[in-house]
Amino acid sequence: MAEDFLTSLETVIRDRRGADPSTSYTASLFAKGRAKIAQKLGEEAVETVIAALDGDAKALTGEAADLVFHLLVLLADAGLSLDDVRAEMMRREGVSGIDEKAARQSQ
Amino acid sequence: MAEDFLTSLETVIRDRRGADPSTSYTASLFAKGRAKIAQKLGEEAVETVIAALDGDAKALTGEAADLVFHLLVLLADAGLSLDDVRAEMMRREGVSGIDEKAARQSQ
Amino acid sequence: MAEDFLTSLETVIRDRRGADPSTSYTASLFAKGRAKIAQKLGEEAVETVIAALDGDAKALTGEAADLVFHLLVLLADAGLSLDDVRAEMMRREGVSGIDEKAARQSQ
Amino acid sequence: MAEDFLTSLETVIRDRRGADPSTSYTASLFAKGRAKIAQKLGEEAVETVIAALDGDAKALTGEAADLVFHLLVLLADAGLSLDDVRAEMMRREGVSGIDEKAARQSQ
Repeated sequence: MAEDFLTSLETVIRDRRGADPSTSYTASLFAKGRAKIAQKLGEEAVETVIAALDGDAKALTGEAADLVFHLLVLLADAGLSLDDVRAEMMRREGVSGIDEKAARQSQ
Repeated sequence: MAEDFLTSLETVIRDRRGADPSTSYTASLFAKGRAKIAQKLGEEAVETVIAALDGDAKALTGEAADLVFHLLVLLADAGLSLDDVRAEMMRREGVSGIDEKAARQSQ
Repeated sequence: MAEDFLTSLETVIRDRRGADPSTSYTASLFAKGRAKIAQKLGEEAVETVIAALDGDAKALTGEAADLVFHLLVLLADAGLSLDDVRAEMMRREGVSGIDEKAARQSQ
Repeated sequence: MAEDFLTSLETVIRDRRGADPSTSYTASLFAKGRAKIAQKLGEEAVETVIAALDGDAKALTGEAADLVFHLLVLLADAGLSLDDVRAEMMRREGVSGIDEKAARQSQ
């Protein structure tokens, strides 16, 4: 389902960089700058943690959507994309390798 | 590029639920339970914030990869998937609507 | 300076538990409940991290003040106080022992 | 109880700045630098949030102790102290004023 949705969304997000901050939330985030975008990402992560512990699937889905959205904006602000992140995840030796790599890193 | 990678990764992650915790990092996360998975997500978000402020694109890509990975595990632990998150993002009235909705919510 | 300030503040905070939420920010926090108070603590921690990396001493002082304030509210909501926290820090074998204990825990 | 404990602890923490990182956890934190100390603060905040939601008073006390400890180290690294934070809290117009100020800021 909607495999390309996140990629399309990234295009929309990038288009709003430099747009009038009063016209869209995304444009206002870019106008506030990197630290503010990062702060919002951190706040959404806190809300995701809380929704996860509450065991409220609907709330968790909503907070995860906010988290992913702000991650895409943060990446765009840094000139990066979800594809860069996916490439890094794949570089960690493919699907089976990611797990192994993560295990090594956690030690 | 690799549109289906995250979906494939989710399948691998779900397969490790219930597996021997000593055999993989993902299986050990599931064994530790929801609170521990949520804690790791929160920690990776903190590291993503710091990498973003450092302006280190390579570090940001790596931390974002860790953040997305742990988000997928957290969603799987709650019986959810990235498709549920995408559906929620799309439900917010499509690509153009997401921005508007986010703006409304932030007020 | 003002050794007893935090203790006095805790008394004020506890007095506002159960007060009309429209009369004070503290009362409104208690009315919203544990999860919301914890969320605010998490958000203030994110802002403290960002201020610390910005190297802005004035901003860091302000965010640390917000963090400590919300920690006191969270403790009060759980029937705990800063004295309980201090006792735990002292229990870790006294001033010199805290460091040692922290080192052990981090391993 | 132990009104001066946190102040004494701050003195010990400051004394460890510049000490051999292999001799103490605090010294190793200073050696790793501001970003790593801030990261630890963020992680302890996440653990405090989770312990608060678990309703485990003992765990919450322990995580709050870790949070306060790392806040003191972060402040020391920035040339600040808990007294600066207390002064800021008092500057917000005294005990009754803090609440009012916080309410204004949250709007």
